[in-house]
Amino acid sequence: MTATSDRPATLTATVTSGADAAKPAPRVDVAGLSEQLLGRWPDWRRHARDRSTDPTFWKDESLSMDEHRERVLDQMRLLACADEKHQVWLAFPERLGGGDSPGANLAGFEELVVADPSLQIKAGVQWGLFASAILHLGTPEQQDRLLPGAMDLSVPGAFAMTEVGHGSDVASVATTATYDPETEEFVIHTPFRAAWKEFLGNAAVHATAATVFAQLITNGVNHGVHCFYVPVRETTGDGRAGAFLPGVSGLDDGLKGGLRGVDNGRLAFDHVRVPRTDLLARYGAVAADGTYTSSIDSPGRRFFTMLGSLVQGRVSLDGAASTASKLGLAIAVRYGAERRQFTSASPVEETVLLDYATHRRRLFPRIAETYATHFAHDRLLDLFDDVFSGEKDTPEQREDLETMAAALKATSTTFVLETLQECRVACGGAGFITENRITSLHHDLDVYATFEGDNTVLLQLVAKRLVGDYAKHLKGTTSSPAGIARFVVDQATDAALHRTGLRRFGQAIADAGDPRRAAGHLRDAETQRELLADRVATLVEDVAMALRPAQKADPVTAARIFDQNQVQLVEAARAHADLLRWSAFTEALEQVADPGTRRVMTWVRDVFGLTLIERNLAWYLVNGRLSAQRARTVTSYVDRLLERLRPHAVDLVDAWGYGPDHLRAVIASGVEAERQDEARAYYAAQRADGSAPISEKSLKKSRS
Amino acid sequence: MTATSDRPATLTATVTSGADAAKPAPRVDVAGLSEQLLGRWPDWRRHARDRSTDPTFWKDESLSMDEHRERVLDQMRLLACADEKHQVWLAFPERLGGGDSPGANLAGFEELVVADPSLQIKAGVQWGLFASAILHLGTPEQQDRLLPGAMDLSVPGAFAMTEVGHGSDVASVATTATYDPETEEFVIHTPFRAAWKEFLGNAAVHATAATVFAQLITNGVNHGVHCFYVPVRETTGDGRAGAFLPGVSGLDDGLKGGLRGVDNGRLAFDHVRVPRTDLLARYGAVAADGTYTSSIDSPGRRFFTMLGSLVQGRVSLDGAASTASKLGLAIAVRYGAERRQFTSASPVEETVLLDYATHRRRLFPRIAETYATHFAHDRLLDLFDDVFSGEKDTPEQREDLETMAAALKATSTTFVLETLQECRVACGGAGFITENRITSLHHDLDVYATFEGDNTVLLQLVAKRLVGDYAKHLKGTTSSPAGIARFVVDQATDAALHRTGLRRFGQAIADAGDPRRAAGHLRDAETQRELLADRVATLVEDVAMALRPAQKADPVTAARIFDQNQVQLVEAARAHADLLRWSAFTEALEQVADPGTRRVMTWVRDVFGLTLIERNLAWYLVNGRLSAQRARTVTSYVDRLLERLRPHAVDLVDAWGYGPDHLRAVIASGVEAERQDEARAYYAAQRADGSAPISEKSLKKSRS
Repeated sequence: MTATSDRPATLTATVTSGADAAKPAPRVDVAGLSEQLLGRWPDWRRHARDRSTDPTFWKDESLSMDEHRERVLDQMRLLACADEKHQVWLAFPERLGGGDSPGANLAGFEELVVADPSLQIKAGVQWGLFASAILHLGTPEQQDRLLPGAMDLSVPGAFAMTEVGHGSDVASVATTATYDPETEEFVIHTPFRAAWKEFLGNAAVHATAATVFAQLITNGVNHGVHCFYVPVRETTGDGRAGAFLPGVSGLDDGLKGGLRGVDNGRLAFDHVRVPRTDLLARYGAVAADGTYTSSIDSPGRRFFTMLGSLVQGRVSLDGAASTASKLGLAIAVRYGAERRQFTSASPVEETVLLDYATHRRRLFPRIAETYATHFAHDRLLDLFDDVFSGEKDTPEQREDLETMAAALKATSTTFVLETLQECRVACGGAGFITENRITSLHHDLDVYATFEGDNTVLLQLVAKRLVGDYAKHLKGTTSSPAGIARFVVDQATDAALHRTGLRRFGQAIADAGDPRRAAGHLRDAETQRELLADRVATLVEDVAMALRPAQKADPVTAARIFDQNQVQLVEAARAHADLLRWSAFTEALEQVADPGTRRVMTWVRDVFGLTLIERNLAWYLVNGRLSAQRARTVTSYVDRLLERLRPHAVDLVDAWGYGPDHLRAVIASGVEAERQDEARAYYAAQRADGSAPISEKSLKKSRS
Repeated sequence: MTATSDRPATLTATVTSGADAAKPAPRVDVAGLSEQLLGRWPDWRRHARDRSTDPTFWKDESLSMDEHRERVLDQMRLLACADEKHQVWLAFPERLGGGDSPGANLAGFEELVVADPSLQIKAGVQWGLFASAILHLGTPEQQDRLLPGAMDLSVPGAFAMTEVGHGSDVASVATTATYDPETEEFVIHTPFRAAWKEFLGNAAVHATAATVFAQLITNGVNHGVHCFYVPVRETTGDGRAGAFLPGVSGLDDGLKGGLRGVDNGRLAFDHVRVPRTDLLARYGAVAADGTYTSSIDSPGRRFFTMLGSLVQGRVSLDGAASTASKLGLAIAVRYGAERRQFTSASPVEETVLLDYATHRRRLFPRIAETYATHFAHDRLLDLFDDVFSGEKDTPEQREDLETMAAALKATSTTFVLETLQECRVACGGAGFITENRITSLHHDLDVYATFEGDNTVLLQLVAKRLVGDYAKHLKGTTSSPAGIARFVVDQATDAALHRTGLRRFGQAIADAGDPRRAAGHLRDAETQRELLADRVATLVEDVAMALRPAQKADPVTAARIFDQNQVQLVEAARAHADLLRWSAFTEALEQVADPGTRRVMTWVRDVFGLTLIERNLAWYLVNGRLSAQRARTVTSYVDRLLERLRPHAVDLVDAWGYGPDHLRAVIASGVEAERQDEARAYYAAQRADGSAPISEKSLKKSRS
């Protein structure tokens, strides 16, 4: 797939100087690495990835919004029924035709973004949210009754949680479901405009039912948010959605910044009645007389348990963001490996973009971060499958899963947007043309940063968990610096693996005078781990201390204290996500069998670790973790690593496993190299036959 | 325009503690500040801004690409002919109906982005590039002959400079214009696919002529890139573009990431002949016998003079980026001042987004940077008018203008994209809906970062100028640190103004022990100036020293040395742009007459200066410019300033002068506050009449 021209001999020669001169230049085993990256469900992922090369599922940029919506619905029908493997049913019970395999389901689902993000999201609404709510919040009887239609798409559904007035703050939704014991019905009602259900996929056109989240009120008591199965539109003779049912009304959200194939809209309910049996009753039920019962006594814990069962959305967005980052970078790197602009080393040969230091700086750290994102996501997927397959379903595991999903989703869905923007700009004007795909991906992925939980809100959830655990930890065991540090590392890594890494923890790292040794020191994985973990520990500890007075303060003062520490709180969560990703990458390195690949991937990991440290260098300096002298070496060492990675750049993006039919970007198809070869041949022929005009400049020189 | 609810009494009270407690809380004089911001051509700017409220000129999001292109062409016809003030002709000679007023022209042009960025860019192609090339590169005879059609749009034109193979590297374009003395014609020719003219606005559909840049070859000598007037399509009976003329071919670039109303396309020429007299001959002419003459002897200087005359594009993009940043921030701040989410200080009252520290951190530093961008652009516009009106047209002024335009365009067109993205996310899902405008602006502005010169390439130009001037300076006068420092500040500020500010320059700033004093010290304008200027001086000096060995090295070694310093070079240019913007802001403060406004605006300037320092804090620490202790105070002082600005946020965006018909975003229209008032009234009524259900939680509490 790759022309050899992108691996310049001069650079390969120059980078093997110094300490590495003795070793032969390593090569990446692209096929082997690619296989490793397929993860725990390689066949399912391959199946889904192959399907993404079928033009039937590709995004068609020429369609109008209405046409795009219909196309995506048709694609979903194919996924539901024409695919004999029924990959989209994998998460559902075997007794209903599913596979009881939540992890494999997501592994496939994530690859849909390659075909068309609108297809991924509309499919996600149907099977990942609407049907999932029935699966996770319904009783077995309700699953048997309601899931088949949701699974085979005979009932396209909306997931009516968010309201105009309340996005991430689900506990405050204002829609009410008041029980009427006379008729044994719930009355679903939208009391004011801010309570309209909003941004619901499928709601504008296709949904005939919805899982509606509302405050359950019975016998004058509000038992908090519960989910109800509510038919919203007639189903016409040909199985399409018809008119709204009585009491239901809606609005079309119309055009959006992307995802035009998803028919987002609003829904409102004017005293709409549903049978008592259509409260999804797994965590709370109402008897005929209106008596409320729940297996979970605490209303708060019940709410979080219900919401937690829907974590799958966040998990899958993390995977989709990782995939989209790969697509963007693969396009930009392939183009950058062929595109030439300006002459530098040679008067006749223009320089390949990737041979410019600024270009490497723009793209290579993002390749490294994408690998980190990938490996962290793999661990998240494992944990998700452990919990939802029932294999290791404990409250602690669920809580870990939710925290990890929030941390990674918030990080990767922000990262992908910055990455696609950088890729777009790195491809110049060509990056702006739709046929080169990058802007299209950016537009579609944009909303991933705020749906399934606004990223800033998610990071606060993560930080609160960290601070809470820290407080528990202080009460429980030792509160020595090393104990706190171990606690932090345990949060982010398999505890068993890395106890030894903490030996020098909690003290500022001593500085060696020799910058060469300093670089060697920074390359050491344990140094990186210590620096990253120490930062998390210190930030969490600082915030925990700063927030302590809030516990006994009046609400206004407490809010003010919280406000003053909110930025730091979010920063602690980001640092935690960084450590998580770095740790996952480092663990994954151990699985790389091929020595050359492992060597290159270790450089990639180092680039990730050191750019994290570089990004927060001021913190390390201010807090005495790095001396000015050592800090100075971080940037130059990163630059050296980026140069060393230059010959491997295309291999590193190829290993992600996306070929021309996945990338579908003209500039990544080799046309640029063809055009340049043609141009160079033209000039070479001119030089050979003496037909080239002489330049005025050289004429002047020769005359003077 | 603003509900009083967004100025919370508690915050106003708390921020006036400490040193400011004695003074009354200042208020921004919105009307007065707004007037100042109109700049040197207030009437023309107001005229253009008023026109942007006319729905005839608004972007219609519902149109297909083809319909949008036609709409924009129709809008341009209105600008050309129906506007009796002929604002789009202001830059052209009075003798042809223009105004000989280049600055006023741009002041108006920049406001077109408010109506529709596609209109701005397509108008920019016609009058700012195509007609401008005739104006600046043509002789008076050619102006008289060719400008009228370009001005009144009877000849829609393309500006054919960029090629598929060469974007920012204009000197390398491959299209040839070979003189044939037999027929006294130039033969315009595209020798290979990479030489197709690419990304040309108007080229896909509407252009009937083009200003084509090609290598001028006569008598076997290549005199470098020159510009030719080339008809490309027939004009049909109704004045529209018809078929391609013989030898001309083209392709439509089709859909792009934005600017769908601009018909970008490719053009190629197969031995197309144009008369000798259609070489735009101001800087180089060919006699009938093929003899080449030029008023500028050096081919290099000639090339840069020709290109430099087209600097207007960069100047206007800087202004447009500033305007689009204002629109995005005004929408996000107005929404953030009304939108409530989660309860913090009160159990019944949800918290306004702007009262969250994270939200202030996301938006307020961008308000400050937008003001800095605005004031710097005002100075750029002055300089541009000085040069192009002929008032102060010296080679030095031209060079300064080009450097400043490159520095500011590269900074502001990157800044606007990050800002719009942040605004989008800060508005949550609502920010993603097209009716709220932000994504639409982002998509359209995206390409501003790479056209009229890729931003990375532009920053390198700036840095090379700085390093070159530095080398000259070393040769010329004193090379003491203070001398170098003065040189740097002179580059960025009016030399006369700030000599006194350099008294402590070149030495690390001494640290006071008291963090309170440290904050006071950082608030001092001279401290900020010194820190910013010192960084520029040091970066430039370091790069200059590091590049020195390249002068005597072989090309490969020289390229390698350059490559190793390229990232630093770009960083030096960025630092220079930062100082430029900070200085412009600080000078503008002196024009603010109202004391309250000046006080608030000084905080805004401080936020800008200190966030710049915060962004590069590691550099200040590593280089011993700030102690760890003082560095620690930077962030907390910024946070305090942001809290202090909270009550003024809406005023600060209102002062930009954009009302509802400019913003055209539903969420910025007050609907959010209305909805929330309705919701709160509903709950208040329930509490009043006792109809509110009791919550399960409180029930449990009361029972236990």
